[in-house]
Amino acid sequence: MRDDFPGLAGGWHYLDTAATAQKPQVVIDAMARAMGEDYATVHRGVYARSANMTLAFEAARRRTAEFMGAGSENEIIFVRGATEGINLVASSWGGVNIGAGDRIMLSQLEHHSNIVPWQMLAERKGAHIDVCPLTADGRIDLDWLETNLTQAHKLVSLAHVSNVLGSVLGAQRAAKAAHKVGAKLLLDGCQAAPRMRIDMAELDCDFYVWSGHKLYGPTGVGVLWARPDILEAMPPYQGGGAMIDKVSFAGTTYAPAPGRFEAGTPMITEVIALHAAIDYVTAVAGEGGMASLFAHESALVTAARTALRNINSITLYGPEKSAGIVSFTMEGVHPHDIGTILDEEGVAIRAGHHCAQPLMDHYGIPATARASFGLYSDESDVEALIAGLERVSRIFG
Amino acid sequence: MRDDFPGLAGGWHYLDTAATAQKPQVVIDAMARAMGEDYATVHRGVYARSANMTLAFEAARRRTAEFMGAGSENEIIFVRGATEGINLVASSWGGVNIGAGDRIMLSQLEHHSNIVPWQMLAERKGAHIDVCPLTADGRIDLDWLETNLTQAHKLVSLAHVSNVLGSVLGAQRAAKAAHKVGAKLLLDGCQAAPRMRIDMAELDCDFYVWSGHKLYGPTGVGVLWARPDILEAMPPYQGGGAMIDKVSFAGTTYAPAPGRFEAGTPMITEVIALHAAIDYVTAVAGEGGMASLFAHESALVTAARTALRNINSITLYGPEKSAGIVSFTMEGVHPHDIGTILDEEGVAIRAGHHCAQPLMDHYGIPATARASFGLYSDESDVEALIAGLERVSRIFG
Repeated sequence: MRDDFPGLAGGWHYLDTAATAQKPQVVIDAMARAMGEDYATVHRGVYARSANMTLAFEAARRRTAEFMGAGSENEIIFVRGATEGINLVASSWGGVNIGAGDRIMLSQLEHHSNIVPWQMLAERKGAHIDVCPLTADGRIDLDWLETNLTQAHKLVSLAHVSNVLGSVLGAQRAAKAAHKVGAKLLLDGCQAAPRMRIDMAELDCDFYVWSGHKLYGPTGVGVLWARPDILEAMPPYQGGGAMIDKVSFAGTTYAPAPGRFEAGTPMITEVIALHAAIDYVTAVAGEGGMASLFAHESALVTAARTALRNINSITLYGPEKSAGIVSFTMEGVHPHDIGTILDEEGVAIRAGHHCAQPLMDHYGIPATARASFGLYSDESDVEALIAGLERVSRIFG
Repeated sequence: MRDDFPGLAGGWHYLDTAATAQKPQVVIDAMARAMGEDYATVHRGVYARSANMTLAFEAARRRTAEFMGAGSENEIIFVRGATEGINLVASSWGGVNIGAGDRIMLSQLEHHSNIVPWQMLAERKGAHIDVCPLTADGRIDLDWLETNLTQAHKLVSLAHVSNVLGSVLGAQRAAKAAHKVGAKLLLDGCQAAPRMRIDMAELDCDFYVWSGHKLYGPTGVGVLWARPDILEAMPPYQGGGAMIDKVSFAGTTYAPAPGRFEAGTPMITEVIALHAAIDYVTAVAGEGGMASLFAHESALVTAARTALRNINSITLYGPEKSAGIVSFTMEGVHPHDIGTILDEEGVAIRAGHHCAQPLMDHYGIPATARASFGLYSDESDVEALIAGLERVSRIFG
């Protein structure tokens, strides 16, 4: 399967899939075709090529809806990425539904993209942010959440899977707790969408966001899903072409969702290529569905954690059962040095705060080394990682 | 040169370049390489591939700055497109600098993307929008502008080139008029950047936006330029990774520009491909620079207008001297029908309101037919257009 990925040529051990996934050739080809012989704008042209491109663009929306278990393609908003999706919700839904004294519940392990937009909103509105603590093994503490949510909480916004620890949220329990106090639940699905089955009806959340480039698709495109009744009540985010009903200087009216939230020429070729990515991923997952990717990657994490535990200087973070991501530190060695030495061995990991500084603060460390797996990862990647770390250990030991 | 464009294969007469430009193979190849053997994230990785991608990404920013005559690459913000660029300015700069009773000056020919964001801002702030009228031949009336700008005007936002009429703004005169009353000038350069030399120092504007896909580059990427002193004083637009200095639940601090305005994983491969597009366009323009593209396209407009005038039923809009765009109507034939019949002849034009409904209202028409040229257009396109229109005339005559 690695042969499908030109980015993995030369036996590269790419263990930074949580940052961004490599792209299969079918996705690159879909992009090239869309930019080449099929290229035209969407939603506007009166010529056949543009009509065809519009059909392909909207077919991608239907495919995305199907992939997520959405009720309708009209619940799918194409955004630049998960970050923009959260900002859209914070600005549009939050602008109307969050007021002075209201509370927003986040958690200690959130990515900056699920912290900063809410801080900006809270500052603008005079609202407050609460932080759900973690269990000892690095999961969002749902016992605490259930006890501490109040009627003042209008929104709970949590990572479906932690980008640092791989911890999987008990999403349905979080939804139940949020809804019990009348709050909405947003799930940041960046690390979940490429690794697990995500089904909007089953998860019972209100908003869900993910990024195409982490699902083996192109950069520059992501997805915001929201319950249709919520979406319909939300004011526009960005103004421009395509999101309007009628523009006049006397007053402008807006299109229904999803158009209302997609101002300007969209990421046409990216959406087409995202369709190809979803097709590829689901084909690789096969009959077992996305759950088989979860099983594959969590088995690699288990193998990695077992082997890492044998290196004395290493501290492991996060739960034993993880969705394809493992973070660790090595005593006396900065994670960046680990990353640099591993790079010389053809092993790419991430070292840093992973855009989760509050989680680093929680552990009292500036950074971790992080290995993350994808559908193309296998035991040889784990072996290369361990061999590389043994070399790091010898150099610094 | 048409052979460079897979989207033009088969002798297609593509006259919708103002909507979006076809992509040369070098741009498609750059995208494929960036998505394939070169693919990695930027600004974060400790491994060589990611460091290389970061260098390429920032080289694209420098190249963009050079192309626009910007003082520094730090003045270049990568956005999804011009629409997002304007929304960013309206939200961030406008949020701080536009208050109750302030006035914003637009014009009758603006694209919806340069109207709706200001309407949304004005509604939020209690500000007012004024509309500069047009001259008889469809240019923004700068005499009127000079007379009617007041100290209450904080912003003037105008199309550098009209997307419907091809009219070219006297940008320096507009800048002088705006600055005289202490207002800032934003230029919507969507139709100018692919067709004219744009030089930030010379234009003397304060903000400039354009879209990559109209400059023969990919969808999903555009550019916002702003004066560095203005940029530094602007609060962030979207929150997330990469735009921060330090995140904590006690308080978050932000990175300087341009990072502060680029939250989340950027459109990595799109930015790389945009670099290739700028290189291609400037190579085609040759020693004469972008002015030679303007000369080429305005000559095609002149030829088209001359020929169109010979068809009795046709009404032409806009000035004689146009930057590659001509709009017209045919008596008794809806523009959509013109577009459909031309499509059968292998000629692609745009029919509709072109996201400029106030301009349509000004002319008292629902739509125009629009032919727009690009660097790959030639006399054969004009001939095919005229031959097609003669057939339309016969069918409806």
